[in-house]
Amino acid sequence: METASFDFGMIGLGVMGRNLLLNMADHGYNTIGFDKDPAKVSSLESFASPGTTVKGVNTLPEMVKQLKRPRKLMMLVPAGPIVDQVINEVLPLLEEGDIIIDGGNSHYTDTLNRIKFLQDKKVHFVGMGVSGGEHGARTGPSIMPGGDVEAWHELKPILEAVSAKVNPPKNEPCVAYMGKGAAGHYVKMVHNGIEYAIMQLISEVYDVMKRSLELTNDELHEIFKKWTEGEMSSFLLEITSEIFLKKDEFTNNRLVDMILDKAGSKGTGKWTSQDAMDLPIPVPTIDTAVSLRDLSVYKEDRAAAEALYKPKIKLATKNKDRIAGQLHDSLFAATIICYAQGLSMLHKASAELNMEIPLKDVVRIWRGGCIIRSSLLELFTFAFKKDPRLSSILLHKKTASLLKKKVIALRRVVSLCASAKVPAAGLASALSYFDAFCSGKLPTNLIQAQRDYFGAHTYQRIDKEGIFHTEW
Amino acid sequence: METASFDFGMIGLGVMGRNLLLNMADHGYNTIGFDKDPAKVSSLESFASPGTTVKGVNTLPEMVKQLKRPRKLMMLVPAGPIVDQVINEVLPLLEEGDIIIDGGNSHYTDTLNRIKFLQDKKVHFVGMGVSGGEHGARTGPSIMPGGDVEAWHELKPILEAVSAKVNPPKNEPCVAYMGKGAAGHYVKMVHNGIEYAIMQLISEVYDVMKRSLELTNDELHEIFKKWTEGEMSSFLLEITSEIFLKKDEFTNNRLVDMILDKAGSKGTGKWTSQDAMDLPIPVPTIDTAVSLRDLSVYKEDRAAAEALYKPKIKLATKNKDRIAGQLHDSLFAATIICYAQGLSMLHKASAELNMEIPLKDVVRIWRGGCIIRSSLLELFTFAFKKDPRLSSILLHKKTASLLKKKVIALRRVVSLCASAKVPAAGLASALSYFDAFCSGKLPTNLIQAQRDYFGAHTYQRIDKEGIFHTEW
Repeated sequence: METASFDFGMIGLGVMGRNLLLNMADHGYNTIGFDKDPAKVSSLESFASPGTTVKGVNTLPEMVKQLKRPRKLMMLVPAGPIVDQVINEVLPLLEEGDIIIDGGNSHYTDTLNRIKFLQDKKVHFVGMGVSGGEHGARTGPSIMPGGDVEAWHELKPILEAVSAKVNPPKNEPCVAYMGKGAAGHYVKMVHNGIEYAIMQLISEVYDVMKRSLELTNDELHEIFKKWTEGEMSSFLLEITSEIFLKKDEFTNNRLVDMILDKAGSKGTGKWTSQDAMDLPIPVPTIDTAVSLRDLSVYKEDRAAAEALYKPKIKLATKNKDRIAGQLHDSLFAATIICYAQGLSMLHKASAELNMEIPLKDVVRIWRGGCIIRSSLLELFTFAFKKDPRLSSILLHKKTASLLKKKVIALRRVVSLCASAKVPAAGLASALSYFDAFCSGKLPTNLIQAQRDYFGAHTYQRIDKEGIFHTEW
Repeated sequence: METASFDFGMIGLGVMGRNLLLNMADHGYNTIGFDKDPAKVSSLESFASPGTTVKGVNTLPEMVKQLKRPRKLMMLVPAGPIVDQVINEVLPLLEEGDIIIDGGNSHYTDTLNRIKFLQDKKVHFVGMGVSGGEHGARTGPSIMPGGDVEAWHELKPILEAVSAKVNPPKNEPCVAYMGKGAAGHYVKMVHNGIEYAIMQLISEVYDVMKRSLELTNDELHEIFKKWTEGEMSSFLLEITSEIFLKKDEFTNNRLVDMILDKAGSKGTGKWTSQDAMDLPIPVPTIDTAVSLRDLSVYKEDRAAAEALYKPKIKLATKNKDRIAGQLHDSLFAATIICYAQGLSMLHKASAELNMEIPLKDVVRIWRGGCIIRSSLLELFTFAFKKDPRLSSILLHKKTASLLKKKVIALRRVVSLCASAKVPAAGLASALSYFDAFCSGKLPTNLIQAQRDYFGAHTYQRIDKEGIFHTEW
């Protein structure tokens, strides 16, 4: 008879689940994994580091009975109905005090429904975001658990062990309690929204350098390498610089040039935009990233439009270095503005959805392991430590003085792209968000006048309280 | 005993319901209205034109029994659960063949649920959009019915009678069957999304003229008046020009300057953006309009940001006329692009949601009565008559040749706003959408490379079929 000797169980041995489990094993935990695909189960142990305990099993009961109590099980299965299926299958096998973790990208409303469903079942449920991709899962991701506080305390040691660490030799773990209810998945969703936006911005800067400056992949590599070694170092810039070097295995070209310009998406960026509109809070640069991915799919229409309009990209024949410098600063400015939009969304959602999200911990654990980690997160950690209730990072003085300098270039680049016919949707949206945010007075009074004129929708006044309607 | 002598019944005597009913009476129909508010019922008849038949009643049964069969009843009540409530109340009073119309701004998914609920009840159900505001309802709105074809044929004479008419002396009615299922409400939703976007664009142009050109309200009136008498005449420009003249009743200022710059919204703009992301199809200028309305509400943050960043609006001291001309053309170009986004959304939604929306009829009935009526709709009617399956109005040659000329100014204005610190979120998004749409090749290949690098999300290639993944 098998004894309960395992510390942690993983349901779903796709690359994320497997790697996270192996990571736990590397930190001395006895781990056990289940997948309904026998091939994934049988290969699991072959990936384990020597001397670690990793076991694959073919049924849920086999896994559950070998886990120490309180049992800790994580699901890393596709978001949606499969999560509910697994919960229903595993629930009868569990006992009071056991912990189920949903580590996938579930929509927060699904997580809320599951919390409700499980609340009288005497097991703990934790909705948890994990960011870092397959590599991060193996070596140290950023981990965003939320919901059940008791479960969080139970899980804390193992999650701290496997998470990314920043600031050696202090080695601060990139995991923290993200708040009540579905806060873990909510924070991860917004993380991904910011990720969409920053990736869009990088692609636009690349577009300018490729189409208007006509730089080669080697030059692009050098520029992004220099950038990521400088003041705006980030994981996304780092991998971007490496991407330009990768040779294609089928042709003599670089791989990046052989990749089709149609973007896929898994939904978290879209959810961020849709949920922001429900709050409501503006995240226009995330919206733009979503819509530009959507536009990329209509390649036939785009080709037809190019043939019809025959746009001639304006080439920047001189001052390439100066323009590259401006692109750097404009990307820096726009990136700050993307974080600002996402963080303001969390600020608002925390209150509206009663999640008590600690923003100071959010930015702290985003400093390492996750896809949007960057040097800026140190600045933001400092800002939210000082003022945990900051409604916008743009209102933080030190961030403002940095942004003030960089936004000058953003203005130039948006102008340059407008005249060069290079679409700078994300950069332009970041700039206009910034300029609108800095407008104590917006022209929205006219919109209110129009709405009242044609629809009797009423308006407020600047000089007195109340709701007014005019017969125009 | 009362006889069934009434042609049409209205449930909900708010300003829209009342005015539409009076409009029907003006066209010779015997009309009857019900509202649970006795004041609205008792005042109804006092609004009627002399010699018309308009009657108010205080209960649903009183109304239903006085309607000729098949009974025609329209609800104009707030979207949401109230619509279901009314349906449940009226249903037991109806008989086979009777017609219920939901004339409010219901979300199309609610309409689909109601169609399903009512399908075996032997009454007809029509989800119908009505645009034109209170004035339009009284004198001739644009009417967008969808769903039950049999009911449409029954309703056609009365709807054609009360709808707006264009092209005298032909007097073509602005009503047509919009397609299957919830097509009526879907088309109306997208209409409103376009409306949001155009209003945002107008407000931005106003912002430039007010903040950078420092024009007075009288000058603004003159400019908008001139514009609406020219090649881009539209209802929204017309009312905008009038708004600048309206005097405030409490101060010596113009009313527009006393209105608070916080925009309200009723949800249809937001739904358009959210549903576009679900399709998916890009409507970035509508998204921008939604997010800028949302941003307007955060007035305290905006004031704090203005105090912190102290932006100095760059003043255009010379060439005001030339800049005004550029603003005209840029607004014209961006407006075309807004319609393009909305119409492409309808094209996509028609297929995805199996609605068979006749785009040629959509643009035809938007020519009169509705809020977004403009001279451009004549051009689009021509375009879709020629090619009913046009996936984007930007691919229509005559539209393209117009846009080509106007977009030059849009480039200049976006540049000007970027350097002047006047937020041009909508204009910039329209331009970048256009430039991205005209890019047969977008930089999305880099985004796909990044996604595959960190998340093994795979990619397609330009030179061969299949799904690829690389160990970067």
